[in-house]
Amino acid sequence: MSTLNDPAIQALLEQPNVAIVSTHNADGSILSAIAWVNTEGDELAVNSAVGRKWPTNLQRDPNVTVLVYPPDNPMEYVEVRGTATVDDGADEHIDALSKKYINQDKYPFRVPGEERIKFTIAPEHVRYQKQG
Amino acid sequence: MSTLNDPAIQALLEQPNVAIVSTHNADGSILSAIAWVNTEGDELAVNSAVGRKWPTNLQRDPNVTVLVYPPDNPMEYVEVRGTATVDDGADEHIDALSKKYINQDKYPFRVPGEERIKFTIAPEHVRYQKQG
Repeated sequence: MSTLNDPAIQALLEQPNVAIVSTHNADGSILSAIAWVNTEGDELAVNSAVGRKWPTNLQRDPNVTVLVYPPDNPMEYVEVRGTATVDDGADEHIDALSKKYINQDKYPFRVPGEERIKFTIAPEHVRYQKQG
Repeated sequence: MSTLNDPAIQALLEQPNVAIVSTHNADGSILSAIAWVNTEGDELAVNSAVGRKWPTNLQRDPNVTVLVYPPDNPMEYVEVRGTATVDDGADEHIDALSKKYINQDKYPFRVPGEERIKFTIAPEHVRYQKQG
């Protein structure tokens, strides 16, 4: 099995490529949404606002699948299946993601009253694919 | 609810933006993969080779979620949840998708012995999001 430390996967995750985060809705269907992602050691870390659909899904069912690919080559991608855990430091983390994705030290899109939530994702299955 | 006929959604689906197709693995986890997609009337249509993981998942459990966004703006996307049905015409369909995505009349990546499979997806929930 691949791991997040494989160089090609690391490169995909270090670049500001967005993640497609897929979670389980209560009715059993799959919710897919787009989010920022980075790595922390052997885990992924994602961030949202409390009350939005995908973090609410993860609070109920932590099983998650994350797919990342570079926009200029969708034939290369990494798919990570794992288990999400709520982590401390959501505010610092969204600022770090802002730095990564839009080169701003402070996340600029915060809505008044918004509470951020951070999840780390321990990978159980990492699949890397490159075609063409 | 949005429909596939909304102009912004039609535009997203007419352009050669890839789809992230999320299906249910037998163990309950979510498999996400990248595929070509087009529309047929009020439905989506996707195509794969028989025996690959995501079409095999769909043959067992037709519940699927498809997300499409333009690579230059991941803050705009459409998410479609629906039910997949195997359809006739898989060979003609993969050629049509080749025309859409790589401007070739015949799909050039066919492997000897490969059997194509086409699914249409009847939308049950269409979510369009545009931020920033």
